[in-house]
Amino acid sequence: MQEFTKFPTKTGRRSLSRSISQSSTDSYSSAASYTDSSDDEVSPREKQQTNSKGSSNFCVKNIKQAEFGRREIEIAEQDMSALISLRKRAQGEKPLAGAKIVGCTHITAQTAVLIETLCALGAQCRWSACNIYSTQNEVAAALAEAGVAVFAWKGESEDDFWWCIDRCVNVDGWQANMILDDGGDLTHWVYKKYPNVFKKIRGIVEESVTGVHRLYQLSKAGKLCVPAMNVNDSVTKQKFDNLYCCRESILDGLKRTTDVMFGGKQVVVCGYGEVGKGCCAALKALGAIVYVTEIDPICALQACMDGFRVVKLSEVIRQVDVVITCTGNKNVVTREHLDRMKNSCIVCNMGHSNTEIDVTSLRTPELTWERVRSQVDHVIWPDGKRVVLLAEGRLLNLSCSTVPTFVLSITATTQALALIELYNAPEGRYKQDVYLLPKKMGDVGPWPFLCHRMSLSIISPATSTSPACICLRLMPT
Amino acid sequence: MQEFTKFPTKTGRRSLSRSISQSSTDSYSSAASYTDSSDDEVSPREKQQTNSKGSSNFCVKNIKQAEFGRREIEIAEQDMSALISLRKRAQGEKPLAGAKIVGCTHITAQTAVLIETLCALGAQCRWSACNIYSTQNEVAAALAEAGVAVFAWKGESEDDFWWCIDRCVNVDGWQANMILDDGGDLTHWVYKKYPNVFKKIRGIVEESVTGVHRLYQLSKAGKLCVPAMNVNDSVTKQKFDNLYCCRESILDGLKRTTDVMFGGKQVVVCGYGEVGKGCCAALKALGAIVYVTEIDPICALQACMDGFRVVKLSEVIRQVDVVITCTGNKNVVTREHLDRMKNSCIVCNMGHSNTEIDVTSLRTPELTWERVRSQVDHVIWPDGKRVVLLAEGRLLNLSCSTVPTFVLSITATTQALALIELYNAPEGRYKQDVYLLPKKMGDVGPWPFLCHRMSLSIISPATSTSPACICLRLMPT
Amino acid sequence: MQEFTKFPTKTGRRSLSRSISQSSTDSYSSAASYTDSSDDEVSPREKQQTNSKGSSNFCVKNIKQAEFGRREIEIAEQDMSALISLRKRAQGEKPLAGAKIVGCTHITAQTAVLIETLCALGAQCRWSACNIYSTQNEVAAALAEAGVAVFAWKGESEDDFWWCIDRCVNVDGWQANMILDDGGDLTHWVYKKYPNVFKKIRGIVEESVTGVHRLYQLSKAGKLCVPAMNVNDSVTKQKFDNLYCCRESILDGLKRTTDVMFGGKQVVVCGYGEVGKGCCAALKALGAIVYVTEIDPICALQACMDGFRVVKLSEVIRQVDVVITCTGNKNVVTREHLDRMKNSCIVCNMGHSNTEIDVTSLRTPELTWERVRSQVDHVIWPDGKRVVLLAEGRLLNLSCSTVPTFVLSITATTQALALIELYNAPEGRYKQDVYLLPKKMGDVGPWPFLCHRMSLSIISPATSTSPACICLRLMPT
Amino acid sequence: MQEFTKFPTKTGRRSLSRSISQSSTDSYSSAASYTDSSDDEVSPREKQQTNSKGSSNFCVKNIKQAEFGRREIEIAEQDMSALISLRKRAQGEKPLAGAKIVGCTHITAQTAVLIETLCALGAQCRWSACNIYSTQNEVAAALAEAGVAVFAWKGESEDDFWWCIDRCVNVDGWQANMILDDGGDLTHWVYKKYPNVFKKIRGIVEESVTGVHRLYQLSKAGKLCVPAMNVNDSVTKQKFDNLYCCRESILDGLKRTTDVMFGGKQVVVCGYGEVGKGCCAALKALGAIVYVTEIDPICALQACMDGFRVVKLSEVIRQVDVVITCTGNKNVVTREHLDRMKNSCIVCNMGHSNTEIDVTSLRTPELTWERVRSQVDHVIWPDGKRVVLLAEGRLLNLSCSTVPTFVLSITATTQALALIELYNAPEGRYKQDVYLLPKKMGDVGPWPFLCHRMSLSIISPATSTSPACICLRLMPT
Repeated sequence: MQEFTKFPTKTGRRSLSRSISQSSTDSYSSAASYTDSSDDEVSPREKQQTNSKGSSNFCVKNIKQAEFGRREIEIAEQDMSALISLRKRAQGEKPLAGAKIVGCTHITAQTAVLIETLCALGAQCRWSACNIYSTQNEVAAALAEAGVAVFAWKGESEDDFWWCIDRCVNVDGWQANMILDDGGDLTHWVYKKYPNVFKKIRGIVEESVTGVHRLYQLSKAGKLCVPAMNVNDSVTKQKFDNLYCCRESILDGLKRTTDVMFGGKQVVVCGYGEVGKGCCAALKALGAIVYVTEIDPICALQACMDGFRVVKLSEVIRQVDVVITCTGNKNVVTREHLDRMKNSCIVCNMGHSNTEIDVTSLRTPELTWERVRSQVDHVIWPDGKRVVLLAEGRLLNLSCSTVPTFVLSITATTQALALIELYNAPEGRYKQDVYLLPKKMGDVGPWPFLCHRMSLSIISPATSTSPACICLRLMPT
Repeated sequence: MQEFTKFPTKTGRRSLSRSISQSSTDSYSSAASYTDSSDDEVSPREKQQTNSKGSSNFCVKNIKQAEFGRREIEIAEQDMSALISLRKRAQGEKPLAGAKIVGCTHITAQTAVLIETLCALGAQCRWSACNIYSTQNEVAAALAEAGVAVFAWKGESEDDFWWCIDRCVNVDGWQANMILDDGGDLTHWVYKKYPNVFKKIRGIVEESVTGVHRLYQLSKAGKLCVPAMNVNDSVTKQKFDNLYCCRESILDGLKRTTDVMFGGKQVVVCGYGEVGKGCCAALKALGAIVYVTEIDPICALQACMDGFRVVKLSEVIRQVDVVITCTGNKNVVTREHLDRMKNSCIVCNMGHSNTEIDVTSLRTPELTWERVRSQVDHVIWPDGKRVVLLAEGRLLNLSCSTVPTFVLSITATTQALALIELYNAPEGRYKQDVYLLPKKMGDVGPWPFLCHRMSLSIISPATSTSPACICLRLMPT
Repeated sequence: MQEFTKFPTKTGRRSLSRSISQSSTDSYSSAASYTDSSDDEVSPREKQQTNSKGSSNFCVKNIKQAEFGRREIEIAEQDMSALISLRKRAQGEKPLAGAKIVGCTHITAQTAVLIETLCALGAQCRWSACNIYSTQNEVAAALAEAGVAVFAWKGESEDDFWWCIDRCVNVDGWQANMILDDGGDLTHWVYKKYPNVFKKIRGIVEESVTGVHRLYQLSKAGKLCVPAMNVNDSVTKQKFDNLYCCRESILDGLKRTTDVMFGGKQVVVCGYGEVGKGCCAALKALGAIVYVTEIDPICALQACMDGFRVVKLSEVIRQVDVVITCTGNKNVVTREHLDRMKNSCIVCNMGHSNTEIDVTSLRTPELTWERVRSQVDHVIWPDGKRVVLLAEGRLLNLSCSTVPTFVLSITATTQALALIELYNAPEGRYKQDVYLLPKKMGDVGPWPFLCHRMSLSIISPATSTSPACICLRLMPT
Repeated sequence: MQEFTKFPTKTGRRSLSRSISQSSTDSYSSAASYTDSSDDEVSPREKQQTNSKGSSNFCVKNIKQAEFGRREIEIAEQDMSALISLRKRAQGEKPLAGAKIVGCTHITAQTAVLIETLCALGAQCRWSACNIYSTQNEVAAALAEAGVAVFAWKGESEDDFWWCIDRCVNVDGWQANMILDDGGDLTHWVYKKYPNVFKKIRGIVEESVTGVHRLYQLSKAGKLCVPAMNVNDSVTKQKFDNLYCCRESILDGLKRTTDVMFGGKQVVVCGYGEVGKGCCAALKALGAIVYVTEIDPICALQACMDGFRVVKLSEVIRQVDVVITCTGNKNVVTREHLDRMKNSCIVCNMGHSNTEIDVTSLRTPELTWERVRSQVDHVIWPDGKRVVLLAEGRLLNLSCSTVPTFVLSITATTQALALIELYNAPEGRYKQDVYLLPKKMGDVGPWPFLCHRMSLSIISPATSTSPACICLRLMPT
């Protein structure tokens, strides 16, 4: 039962950890918080479950939660109009007819909408989770009930993780011809265990930084044997994952964890890149007094011209109510800073990794940690001062808020378009290389008009009279 | 056991409903969502519970939840600096020494901070809940563990409700001399059942609209037999309960229920009073396109000058993604409007009561209701169109978001000051009438300096270098 | 020729100064800057001028400037839609037919639109200026050319001032039956010199604080012998003269005088009333870092919740680039503050009078004053430090920017409506007292529909599809 | 006297026009409006003038205006701290000692600060104007009075233009070794007439798009015989000339020309590039309702997420109060659009050239043009409708507002640094090519520390405690 952990990857256990922490960085624990994970200690691998149509072609926590999961999917559909309109369009044409897609992503309500859209376009899908914590069990159950071969649950062991991936790939009488990956673990598994599968694969679509990095390495080493599409580096994804998304999730994450009032609070934001810009704009708008630290002169200039005082962290550390890091650097907030914060100061990280706040320096005997709520720790100094640390310094927006469905919709639509393009591309259009999605797909492929429309629909905020649709009308077709 | 529901009030059952829905309007269900209410079906009234010091002078859901509740109280203390500094000050002087306060309020982490502050100032307290749903069981347990005589749990029956109040008032060898009420039910109960208690009562402090209304009626009828303090109509409370609070809670409420992205969404806000101003400012700041409906010419002018298009609801109803009511009127959103909304439109109410959206008109056979999440219903038209109705049209901010601790801190501090003032006032200062808290308390009472400081501290946002403290320094003392 | 200065008012010369400085506070010198005042030293009173129709019933600087003035009036008409639609409506009905109005106001393009509207409604008008500096000579010429009996020019002496008023009132064969006043000087003159005129007067319409104050004093003393309408205290006027107007004019005034860039500048605004709120909002929006000083706790709270740091002036005086006063108090900026400002700091006043900045303290031998531009002085310290003082501490928005036509349009329309109402009111509706314009005029008067429309049109921003018109549609008629 | 117009350039007269209109696009007429150009019809070339030190080595309109011009220069110095601190630093070291700079730029108060700084650094300067209209005569007089050899006045003829340039280059006993150009006309003249001068020239510094374009052409053709520095394409210049500058100048330009109130106005901004973003942000902040037209999907998405409705121009053209173009395209606003605008609609251009509004289509017999103010035309339709056209469709910010001194300071400092670098660079560092200023100059040149400091000082907003200085402290030195 433990065989899959023995799988000889180059970097072993650390490779897994890293791929999880870097590709998906942190679990979507808040989105997953609707999941009741405590009720049942039996491993899904040992359960016998059947959906209402009699199929057992799946492995989820509890198929009986399907109804609840269906509701979550329906909520998600409300803000994923591009995928839904793609689905409608597919009633006549089936651009993925014959496609056999093996996927490995977070399994949430939003990815469920993607998976069911791929099915509606004609594809057969087998799916596993790219993170051992991020699966919404009810959503997985709903997918299983709807007939998708899904193998995932919240709280997988490392062995479970690889077992699930294996169950998606290694099937009698079914061979994948497309890969949709998030983090590169699925791709890695196929490379190592089933290299022959690549003979049939028409392409890989990869979303994450880590996965894309791995693909470029393969390509450089001459080992990439199929075309791959880099979804990570599209403009829309970059803007949304940073500026627009963080503008909303900083508020959401702080509110859900601390119920803090923003009005009148003094906040210092470390770093004025896209993430910092989003955080600052939102907090300023709600009445906080915001300071910025920044070492790049151009970004500092922008902060200055946007009306923020640019300071050294040490200048304001005694007076601020909230400290937010988003620099991409290490140890931006040091133990010395933490020592000087006032009582009840909130500290959190919106940056790239969990190293911006020197949390390690707080794990010393003289400080008491008190877990007061999920993702909220009070760190208590000998004199009684408390610092409120969120998500132990990990990414606040992934740990303590949900990513807006609309943002995920953009990535999901791009993934669907990439799959359609790779699957239908005439031979020779794509070599064994890593590609960016063409900005305008109108000129190429068997689905030019569809894709053209869709690439624009990506930006449509859920309404037929929306700006995007107006854009569409402005563009030549 | 059911005897208390038989209690002959004038309006009977409806009186209770009204007092609950009007005084506290809606339960703080979101704040209470941390409460696990499903585990135990035994009524607290039938349980034998003892705290760690051996006392049984309370009735709560589960005394074992005290530790968790203590954590919630500690979180709340972080943003209630005025009460905490009042508490510190009381270490020498005990302005409420000898006070026996019977209270009836929501029982949440924030009111717990108030109650424990009153105790620190020298008072003895007995407490019940003013709403059958709003009690945070863990917080009640923490209060009981700390020795407060608290009688409250989430999900009380109507009989339980009056029983709890009665347990606070009707005690051998202990007689209340102060009342702190929220909604007027406690006051009402004492009037009807124990009128003699008023001989010892030095004053009533009342927070809610409904309770204050009842007091004025009593006063008008010549039946008010003690002084009463109207906390509801203070400037700070009005501003905070409306403009500043709603500016934050509209975002919080929408996000927690629907995960909707605000950027690019088209929103119509019905009504541009203080609540509407708050909602509009927040949504505009986060990139929504906001329309306003307003019939008052001055408010319409303000909306116009603030950069919002003032429209008739029917003009934009087909295109908007979100509809928010805050007019204070009835049936602002009619069935006809609902019929014309587009698929996935979100409808919610931030106004005064639950009648702004004509929800009744949606309870017809041709429409299907689907509860997709707590406080979220999809109402489905025959053609498949879904409208997303939040909190069944009740107040979104009370039902689906937490009220910021800082806001509650203001009211709580005002309540404490009112109690101090009434309890210490020399005879003759207050007659049998309803009073507003004096704007400056410096000239009166035995605690002039304290109260003066406190009335300023109310606005202090949790920091010793805060604006309020600077104000303080500017003011003559 | 100098006889009019000998006129025995109670307060003599100071009365005049005060009425000018308080009612109109400062001259609209910027609006008047298009006026070429240097070419001609001959007093208009000594000139013989005739308009193109042969009339000499006026006294202006130079009738030949009429064409230029007509252009200015046409520009003003573009943003005064309410008056223009009132004018159109009057083509059939002449609600002021028979009215003989004597007026005394600033004479600018905007008041010219008012005067010509009154004429179009059927009135005969005679007009003088309420301020010796504020007349736009070209506009006065254009009015004279159009046949209005106007007596005003820029740079009148005190004797000229009263002479012009007298020429309006004291006419053979013509007796006024309505008064439109701004500051009360005209009313005062009639009271003292021609009390019999009041027998025919149906009412006084007064706009300024000072004038209204005088009327209430008369009323209190039992000496008010006709009804008077207080236009000053209407909600729209208050909001516009303060919040909305200052939000724009602070930017305009600073830019025109100093060409300063707002982005990144540190600004302190003294006072957070309506004027301060407007200044802060505008500067914050354009990227300035804004501090607020405020002693009123409620206003300080608002500043705090709006995201401004509330400080003591001395805390930030060394670092700020701009200091703006709008407190209504005296000596808010003292010589000590001025001594501590850094080089090139800009100091200006948006408040009530010219006493907020202690300018007198700067008129000492060790400081050098250098007039670098109209309304701009460099005050130079012995060490070379320069402070940039605008308008010598007088009101920046009146001295150095134009008041937006739309704002003036609101007052002008209100004045016109008040004249119509008073002139047409049935006997007995108004006593010898001071009235506010009824909020809704629909129920009263011979022009109910007209007035109802007009009171709404006041808020119409120049467009037939404007918010206000939509409001209109929402209102019952 | 007319000989210089006969100078045989390739493109003759049109070359001149183009170079003027493209390099400097439009004259700084507003800044120049302080100039009294009407008093004197004698050509400066025919006047004999001497400054107070007896020198006649200049040619300006009127040397007697020097005092007024000195005041303007002093105002400008207040917001040009980087140049001033560069000047102070040069008291010991003279990095431009021996430099003989011939310059051709706009001659305004801000460039005067640059020229005088170059002199303070040790250079000798001879200067002419790059635009026949943009010279501030008083400033030119002040420079002449201070001993600079300046040859420029407002309203030069084409012959005058080349004559002034020639007088700077063609001097007995003085030969330039550096060129500072804006538009390339000076460089062009030297190439054609005095190619031998290039033997001594160490480098050219060029600011404008056009001039840089010409330099790249020369370089490509192998004809560039000295190193050249492209100042135009620095990040700071790009951001300032577009986003930050336009955010302020759109308000300033509209206000100075029309006195329009922004609050409540409906505005359509065509194009959401950096200029459009600046315009939209400012107008939204002041209460306007802003629509955006945009054809690029990414920019449209940004507009959408920033809260602006993205529309087709024809959808809103009937209802808007203001139309602003900033697309960089031609005929964005067509005659058809103009025909459909409502009365009093304001139309202006903030974009790249004067072709965005099809002004030519308005020069037809049925339309009447009425010049109502400098830079403001009413175009009147047969039915009386007026459209308010600003600056005849030329750039509003250059024609009708001043460019903030701080913005010009950035470019000026960059120019000074480029001159220092080129003049002091060891042989071989720069070839005969076009260079960008190194982002960090600390590693190179004889003035590493100075330049390093200065490149940071560029962003310092006039205060020693400013953000930029804090940046400075953060940076390693």
